[in-house]
Amino acid sequence: MTQNPSKQPAQDFGGKIVALAGGVGGAKLALGLYRYLQSKNRAKELAVVVNTGDDMDYLGLRISPDLDTVMYTLADLANPTTGWGIKGDTAQALQMLGRYGHDNWFWLGDQDIATHLIRTRGLQTGKTLTQITDEMRTALGIECELLPMTNEPVRTIVETEEVGSLPFQEYFVRRRAADTVKSLTFEGIEEAELTDEVCHALTDPALIIICPSNPYLSIQPILAIPSMRKLLSSSSAPIVVVSPIVGGVALKGPAAANMRSLGGETEASALGVARVYAGFAQRFVLDQVDAEQKSDIEKLAYKVMVTNTIMKDDESKIRLAQEILEGYAAI
Amino acid sequence: MTQNPSKQPAQDFGGKIVALAGGVGGAKLALGLYRYLQSKNRAKELAVVVNTGDDMDYLGLRISPDLDTVMYTLADLANPTTGWGIKGDTAQALQMLGRYGHDNWFWLGDQDIATHLIRTRGLQTGKTLTQITDEMRTALGIECELLPMTNEPVRTIVETEEVGSLPFQEYFVRRRAADTVKSLTFEGIEEAELTDEVCHALTDPALIIICPSNPYLSIQPILAIPSMRKLLSSSSAPIVVVSPIVGGVALKGPAAANMRSLGGETEASALGVARVYAGFAQRFVLDQVDAEQKSDIEKLAYKVMVTNTIMKDDESKIRLAQEILEGYAAI
Repeated sequence: MTQNPSKQPAQDFGGKIVALAGGVGGAKLALGLYRYLQSKNRAKELAVVVNTGDDMDYLGLRISPDLDTVMYTLADLANPTTGWGIKGDTAQALQMLGRYGHDNWFWLGDQDIATHLIRTRGLQTGKTLTQITDEMRTALGIECELLPMTNEPVRTIVETEEVGSLPFQEYFVRRRAADTVKSLTFEGIEEAELTDEVCHALTDPALIIICPSNPYLSIQPILAIPSMRKLLSSSSAPIVVVSPIVGGVALKGPAAANMRSLGGETEASALGVARVYAGFAQRFVLDQVDAEQKSDIEKLAYKVMVTNTIMKDDESKIRLAQEILEGYAAI
Repeated sequence: MTQNPSKQPAQDFGGKIVALAGGVGGAKLALGLYRYLQSKNRAKELAVVVNTGDDMDYLGLRISPDLDTVMYTLADLANPTTGWGIKGDTAQALQMLGRYGHDNWFWLGDQDIATHLIRTRGLQTGKTLTQITDEMRTALGIECELLPMTNEPVRTIVETEEVGSLPFQEYFVRRRAADTVKSLTFEGIEEAELTDEVCHALTDPALIIICPSNPYLSIQPILAIPSMRKLLSSSSAPIVVVSPIVGGVALKGPAAANMRSLGGETEASALGVARVYAGFAQRFVLDQVDAEQKSDIEKLAYKVMVTNTIMKDDESKIRLAQEILEGYAAI
């Protein structure tokens, strides 16, 4: 990883680069991959498959928070402070909803509403979520594929110790992910079908990357779609995990707490993440601060790359993406 | 009309004051009536019945422009420059819709969207437009009744000389009411029923006021509801018309042009307005600049009040309302 990237030509991947992502954490690496491939005129070889278990219906609007986060990020529209929402967006509608006495705990940016309106209307008129998303990302000038994990509604239900079961956004936003999660249910997952677009992206891909998203809340719903795990693992492409836990903490969100209550780990760690995907993924991208866990992760049959995985700006996102692609693409 | 209003106690109306209104022009007098009655602690005696023929569906949102204009006006939220929309509102969602390549010729304020979302959601969950409107006006602190003319969807279709038939808002907003209107159709009017609330308000009302709204586009749809005209004219209460045409021009909108193409008048005039309602209404409020038309209007069996009908500020709205109420309430 000390090679000078500018002297290294991009390898011929010989297939799609498929990234599985949730929200903010996943979007960062997706952006790095996208920008790097764009610089090589190969953005079209990237497909980002996004969790839709977080989707919700709010006031009749279909909201897909993870899809929106990834889309806004790739379109260079994301709010750089939060990682989600649109930069410079206002909340006039939300304030007015409050004035009408309506629930307004879920952030609804005014520009954001345009996305929700178009998505909702598209679904009402018989389009699939995949079609609608493709039209939106095209309008926003995004050149890579942006694929919802499925077109059918899947809803993550969080069983908490404190207050019983909660729809995902009630747990995550309304109650600020403060409850202890005992188990997860993905409502509708049995009826959820793999889309043609996801199947196509996963037919002989060059590389499958599990972005540094929450393994339980963001990645597990994707893998829980019937046949998805099978399709992923039956491909000859390596599956690379980028750890969302660095130095024992989650870079964003409740992943560390989830790892204890859902993963049965004493402490959150990259090793714990490796255990989640053991036997399924073969490569692991470990942050340099966790280098001492390398040999333990290798014992789980991973090849491990140690590098700086902190993506604090576009440059570091692109650098990490490049290391992953150049390190593994041709293997 | 030269009496000093402050020395005159409000009369006991002995029934509801019912105002029929369209958008901006009607909302002005509705506000005058409301504020005047509020000052007498009698705001609850006012019921404003509003045209819904202008309603439209846009991106899955049910929009009721006239209801919104009257509601925002009574709640002191209306944009004082336009008369419609919410003061200080922004259009971030609309701009984003444009970015997605979506039609954005219909103004959609961000705060406004909250109204449309709540209305749309309410209808989806089985509430009537009357219930939803009542909940919203209550939340906004409006003390009088605000009643859509019917709960069923009625759509005004405008047959134009230039481009054939147009949904109302296409004619009014998108094409800026620039086409010549040959005829109007109120789609759904035969299925539209009088609501219990409108029937109740019109059971022995004290006074029925036709606000200075467009007689063809705003008032005619209300009167076209089966039994509405009968119910109105069978009541013993006088029906008072306030002319929307002053000095031969419409104070707002295409009423003058409509009067020529739809009303068969050579020129727009208060007399022409009087002809529209002749035999149905018995009182006519004529602006002082049109005083010379008084005798011609009287020949149509109207009692005529001549006064200043220009409502340029709240004070003049209240004064006009007071003159109408004190002039006719006890008759």
